[in-house]
Amino acid sequence: MKKIENSTPRKDGYRMPGEFERHSGTYIIWPERPDNWRLGGKPAQNTFVEVASVIGKYEPCTVLVSSWQYANAREMLPDYIRVVEMSNNDSWVRDCGATFLVNNEGNLRADDWSFNAWGGLVDGLYFPWDKDDMIAQKMCELEHADRYRLDDFVLEGGSIHTDGEGTLLVTEECLLSAGRNPDKSKEEIENILKEYLNVDKVLWIPKGIYNDETNGHVDNMCNYVKPGEVVLAWTDDVNDPQYARSKEAYDYLTNEVDAKGRHLKVHKLLIPKKPILITQEESEGVDAVDGTLPRQEGDRMAASYVNYYTGNGFVALPVFGDEHDELAIEKLKELYPDRNIEPIYAREILLGGGNIHCITQQVPFRK
Amino acid sequence: MKKIENSTPRKDGYRMPGEFERHSGTYIIWPERPDNWRLGGKPAQNTFVEVASVIGKYEPCTVLVSSWQYANAREMLPDYIRVVEMSNNDSWVRDCGATFLVNNEGNLRADDWSFNAWGGLVDGLYFPWDKDDMIAQKMCELEHADRYRLDDFVLEGGSIHTDGEGTLLVTEECLLSAGRNPDKSKEEIENILKEYLNVDKVLWIPKGIYNDETNGHVDNMCNYVKPGEVVLAWTDDVNDPQYARSKEAYDYLTNEVDAKGRHLKVHKLLIPKKPILITQEESEGVDAVDGTLPRQEGDRMAASYVNYYTGNGFVALPVFGDEHDELAIEKLKELYPDRNIEPIYAREILLGGGNIHCITQQVPFRK
Repeated sequence: MKKIENSTPRKDGYRMPGEFERHSGTYIIWPERPDNWRLGGKPAQNTFVEVASVIGKYEPCTVLVSSWQYANAREMLPDYIRVVEMSNNDSWVRDCGATFLVNNEGNLRADDWSFNAWGGLVDGLYFPWDKDDMIAQKMCELEHADRYRLDDFVLEGGSIHTDGEGTLLVTEECLLSAGRNPDKSKEEIENILKEYLNVDKVLWIPKGIYNDETNGHVDNMCNYVKPGEVVLAWTDDVNDPQYARSKEAYDYLTNEVDAKGRHLKVHKLLIPKKPILITQEESEGVDAVDGTLPRQEGDRMAASYVNYYTGNGFVALPVFGDEHDELAIEKLKELYPDRNIEPIYAREILLGGGNIHCITQQVPFRK
Repeated sequence: MKKIENSTPRKDGYRMPGEFERHSGTYIIWPERPDNWRLGGKPAQNTFVEVASVIGKYEPCTVLVSSWQYANAREMLPDYIRVVEMSNNDSWVRDCGATFLVNNEGNLRADDWSFNAWGGLVDGLYFPWDKDDMIAQKMCELEHADRYRLDDFVLEGGSIHTDGEGTLLVTEECLLSAGRNPDKSKEEIENILKEYLNVDKVLWIPKGIYNDETNGHVDNMCNYVKPGEVVLAWTDDVNDPQYARSKEAYDYLTNEVDAKGRHLKVHKLLIPKKPILITQEESEGVDAVDGTLPRQEGDRMAASYVNYYTGNGFVALPVFGDEHDELAIEKLKELYPDRNIEPIYAREILLGGGNIHCITQQVPFRK
C-alpha cells in the first residue's frame, strides 16, 4: 500500500469519523512486556481476552501479537477473534496504531503519526519504541489502506477525540508537552490537526486526569457521546487534585462552541470514589528495568470511567470495584439508550497505565 | 479462527481447486536467511520483487516478511503489493503455507499440514522449522479461514498437484521418504490425501527431478495444465541422470487413468540443455552453518521449467539463460492460449533450492 506524498486528508476529502459511527472492526494488541505488566502479563492477558471477547460479539475484532506470544494468544482467545502476528513494544494500539479516515465514497485511508512512547527522550515511558512506530503502517497494509505518514509530528490516538463533524477535542497538557512537538507552536499544531483530521475547530481542554502518565490524554478525561454532547470526568470533592482539572475543563467546554456553532452539552461522569492505588503485591510483580516507568506501591492510578470504548451496538466500560461503578453504568445507559453497556473489571489494564479505550482502535465502516 | 476437530474436508464438502482455477490472490514470503540465500538474500530479494510485481499485475499479492526485513521489503516492493509481517524460517510458502480449500458455496478453509523442513531430523534442510510450521495457521487467520490441522502428518504443498476434479499427482520419492511419515504405509498416506484434499485417485509418479533437495517434489517435475492434461519435465539425452526419471514418469502417466477415467495427455517440457551448476562466487556468498544444506561450487541444481506458477490470466515461468528457454516459452504459449506467459530470470531462486512455484501459494477464489 502507498505512502501518500504531497497531500493531506483535508485536500483529498478524507475525515476521521466519530468513534460512535459505524465500525468495520476493532484492533487490539496483546500485552506481554514484563516491565510494564505484572507477572509476565498473565493477569492483563486475561482482561484483554475479556475485552476482545466482548467486542468480538458485536464487530470483527483482530488481536495483534508478537511471534513469541502468538500460540498462547490464539489459545486464550475465542475462535471468533482473528489473531495476527505483529511485533510491538507494548500494547496501546489507540496510541501507536493507525488513525483511520474515510471519504464520502467509503474508501479507507489513515494517518500514521510519529510515535515516541508518550514523550520520547524527554519523558517517554519506555525505550525503544521503533516497533510501535511501525504498527500504524502495518495496520494499513492489513486493511489495504494508503496512509499519510507524518515523520515530523508526534501524536497518539488517545490524545484526540472527534465528533466526526469538524470538531476535535484535545488537551493542552498533552499536545503542548515538551516531549512531543516542542519546536511547534500551538497554532502550528492546530493547523496540522485541521489538515490531517479534516476538522475546522480544535477545542483545547487545559488538562487531563491527575497523575495520567500520558501527559493528560483527552480520552481519559472527555469523550463524545454524539455531536454536541460530551462526557467529562468529574469529582465533587474539592480536596481531590482532580477537582481543579475537571472544573477548568467544564468551564472551558461550557463556554465554547463547536465547529457547527453548537454549545456543547457536558455530562459529568464521576471518577471512582476512592483513589485506586497500586498494592505492594502488584508493584512487586513488575520487572524493574531502567528506562521504563516504575509501578510503585501506593501510587495513585489515573482511573476514569471516561476511558470506555464505543462500538457497533455497545459500549465497553471499565469498572474498578468502586462504589461509583453503578453510577457510571447507569449514566452510560442513559446516554446510550441504543447500545448495550458492557462493564469490564479493568484493574489489570489500569495497572499497565491506561484503560479500555487505550487498548482499542476502530476501523470505521468502509465499503 | 477455528481449528476444526473431528472432521475432514471430504466430510465437510471442501476440495482443493486446481491452481489454474480462478484465484483470490497469492502469498509470497520474503527471503533473507544468509545461510541459504547468498549475500544476505539481496540478489534473491530482487528476483522475489520481480515475481511479486508480475503476479500483482494480475491478482492481489501479499508478501509476508519478518519484522527485521519489513521496512526494506516495503521499500523494495511496488505499492500495489501488500506487505504483512510474519516470522519465518525461510521463504517457501508453497511448502509451509496453507493449502486452501473451497466448498460449493465459495467458502474458504485450509489444510495445515505438519512441516518439518523437508525431512526433519532425517534429512531436513535446516533446523529449527518452528516458525515455518506456524505460517499456514497465520495465513488462515489473515484470510478468516478455519483450518484442518494435521499434527500427525507431514506434507509440503510442493509435493502435490491436483486437477481439482478428484485426481492428485504426487511422487513416491517424496511422499514415501524416510524423513516425513515413516510410520505410515503408502495406503495410509493415500487415504489421508483422499480425506484431506477430497480426491478419489492419487497418481504416484515414481521420482522427481534429479538432485532435487526436496526429495523430488512433484511441482518441479509435473504440473496440471487443465484436467486430463499435464506437462512433464523431459530430456532426450539418455546419458543425463534425469532421463530415466522422466521416462519412468512418462510411462507411468500414459498408462494410468485419472479419477474420471480419462487417459492423461502428457506434454513433454525439456529441461535446460546445459546442467545449471553453482559457481564458486555463488557458493562463497552463502554463510556456512552447521545443520543447513551447504551450497557447494559445481553442484548441479534441479532446474526445471515445470516449476512455473499459474494465476489469473498469466503463467510466471522461470527461465535460466539457457538455449531451451525459448522452447519452454513457446510450449507454454501453446498450452495456455488464454494466459500471458511471463518469463522471469530465476537463477537466484534456484540457488536457494526451488523456483517460482515453490515461492508462491494461491488463495482460490472465494465469495
